[in-house]
Amino acid sequence: MTFYFERLKTQGAARAGILHTPHGDILTPVFAPVGTQATVKAVPPRDLREVGTSLVLSNTYHLHLRPGSDLVRDLGGLHQFMQWQGPILTDSGGFQVFSLAHINRIDDDGVTFQSHIDGSRHRFTPEVSMAIQENLGADIIMAFDQCPPPTDRAVVETAVARTSDWAARCREAHPDDARQALFGIQQGGIFADLREQSSAFLRGLDFPGYAIGGLAVGESKAEMYATLDQCVPMLPEDKPRYLMGVGAPDDLAQAVKRGIDIFDCVLPTRLARHGAVFTPDGSINIGRELFKRDERPLDADCDCYCCQNFSRAYLRHLVKAKELLGHYLLSVHNIRFLIRLMEEMRRAIFEERLEAYTQCFLERYLQTV
Amino acid sequence: MTFYFERLKTQGAARAGILHTPHGDILTPVFAPVGTQATVKAVPPRDLREVGTSLVLSNTYHLHLRPGSDLVRDLGGLHQFMQWQGPILTDSGGFQVFSLAHINRIDDDGVTFQSHIDGSRHRFTPEVSMAIQENLGADIIMAFDQCPPPTDRAVVETAVARTSDWAARCREAHPDDARQALFGIQQGGIFADLREQSSAFLRGLDFPGYAIGGLAVGESKAEMYATLDQCVPMLPEDKPRYLMGVGAPDDLAQAVKRGIDIFDCVLPTRLARHGAVFTPDGSINIGRELFKRDERPLDADCDCYCCQNFSRAYLRHLVKAKELLGHYLLSVHNIRFLIRLMEEMRRAIFEERLEAYTQCFLERYLQTV
Repeated sequence: MTFYFERLKTQGAARAGILHTPHGDILTPVFAPVGTQATVKAVPPRDLREVGTSLVLSNTYHLHLRPGSDLVRDLGGLHQFMQWQGPILTDSGGFQVFSLAHINRIDDDGVTFQSHIDGSRHRFTPEVSMAIQENLGADIIMAFDQCPPPTDRAVVETAVARTSDWAARCREAHPDDARQALFGIQQGGIFADLREQSSAFLRGLDFPGYAIGGLAVGESKAEMYATLDQCVPMLPEDKPRYLMGVGAPDDLAQAVKRGIDIFDCVLPTRLARHGAVFTPDGSINIGRELFKRDERPLDADCDCYCCQNFSRAYLRHLVKAKELLGHYLLSVHNIRFLIRLMEEMRRAIFEERLEAYTQCFLERYLQTV
Repeated sequence: MTFYFERLKTQGAARAGILHTPHGDILTPVFAPVGTQATVKAVPPRDLREVGTSLVLSNTYHLHLRPGSDLVRDLGGLHQFMQWQGPILTDSGGFQVFSLAHINRIDDDGVTFQSHIDGSRHRFTPEVSMAIQENLGADIIMAFDQCPPPTDRAVVETAVARTSDWAARCREAHPDDARQALFGIQQGGIFADLREQSSAFLRGLDFPGYAIGGLAVGESKAEMYATLDQCVPMLPEDKPRYLMGVGAPDDLAQAVKRGIDIFDCVLPTRLARHGAVFTPDGSINIGRELFKRDERPLDADCDCYCCQNFSRAYLRHLVKAKELLGHYLLSVHNIRFLIRLMEEMRRAIFEERLEAYTQCFLERYLQTV
């Protein structure tokens, strides 16, 4: 069996484990940087490895449009194409179709849409999403889902019904195999009964892993944490749990405490391209005048290439001068920051001091002391 | 003595040597990538080292405007600021003032201009250029010169007279010291007698190194080579010779043969940002449809990170998708290509087969076989 999840230790709802995949082990909890178009923006694969990345996410919607999943398959699959030999997860394309594309028609069978790049017409169904993800060849692939705005009950109800139906079709199109594990996605917005309805259906399909979708898409942080309190326990304890699209450091800390194992988000690299960086004392924009002559590293505790070598003054200069090296250095740091947070929370779980660690981290990060 | 030039071997006019500097030895002939704003665009310092870079150029004009040379000085100088611990060369600012800024007034004493960034007013004189370059702290600094269009004799005559006068003032403002070597710049356009007039004056000032300015600024390649034939021998044999702003592979080969030791150019990184790359068979644009499914590396002979890992198909995808990683990978390759050319020509000089090597390289690169 090439794909299985070991829970090694729990503390409260939190878990430390290992997710075994055909391309290597993932120590959980884990943060996965996002390589939308088969590249984590500005960061070479060897740097990803250096900052401790074990899982990279890439986007089905984008790769389908460009360069096309048949091309990626013919060139040896996504690992070979982007030269990332570790585990990869691809999303289903659902989220991007609904957020980026121009929707022509949505029905119970699937979605017809126009590319945001060139207006070309495409159709995604559960079966198409599976076929594309099989071409790409990621270790973890995702069921095709509909992610609705989380607070409109009527809309969420329809999306849950459709997501359940599509999950069953994905499971049929892609039964368990040794190469790719298919995860189901729980929807239900902020409504506990709809989350339970979605989870119950997915549990019946016995997926090797489960994701929570439809959060961090507009609701408040308090609503998100309250929803997590309710919906994480609905997922099987012995399977990996993946909270999609969440990447703020405080959200990661809150979600690990509630039993999440896997995260992905564009946040660290997107913020970097706007000059914003994570520090233990909260995020800062390094372009500010304040940092003009600051000789300190971004984060004195950080072991990344950026913090080990460059001053805030130099990074500010790169940002002000719009230099490409700034995107690289700040991205490397931001990714390392989230990965180190996950490494430290994992250690805290093993050492049964997660509560204290999390409280201490959050107080400092949110400046509540 | 921290700064001196050893000629180890000559073949015809070509020379192989070592330029000793306070920040390490430079094996010549050498190509220096350009870090205009204290960063070689998209390439981290450790990658520069990896591709064999021994000398980096940075621009006085740009660093004066942003972040300011006093700030760089206060933060420990340019080596510390940009974390490049090898040798650095700064230009005088003259070329950029005349090509980028809005000139308000030019007189025998200096130039008053407005910044291309924010329109702010500045004045460069020979003494100001020396003071800025002393603040930056490069190992090699350049005399403040006026670089004219190379074919208008009357304009070139004035520029030569002014450049001579300014060279004397730079030499006085910056006598030989252990930290920074000041190079004089020969001007004279395509006119041999003006080149000789300029050289004779500079030789009288006994600089530790000499540059040839005012070429590759609009004249034909044939004119440039003919001018080099005449003007390189005007420079002292025992001092390093630097051909400014030349970076096309065929021009490098032609100029090494004629006795040039040092080159700099933005070409490898600028081309990279437009998807163009050097190969032994000439330069190609990797964005072309032709490369869509090409599994080969850019250059099968190349030992760089890009060629050792990535396919042309992937690089084409990065270029078409406008991904930042493309700038990095293509820049790394293009810089490595020029540095390897210099390494191979150096070896050919030692092995007394430079003629054959150069002919073979040029025939293949220019596709004349």
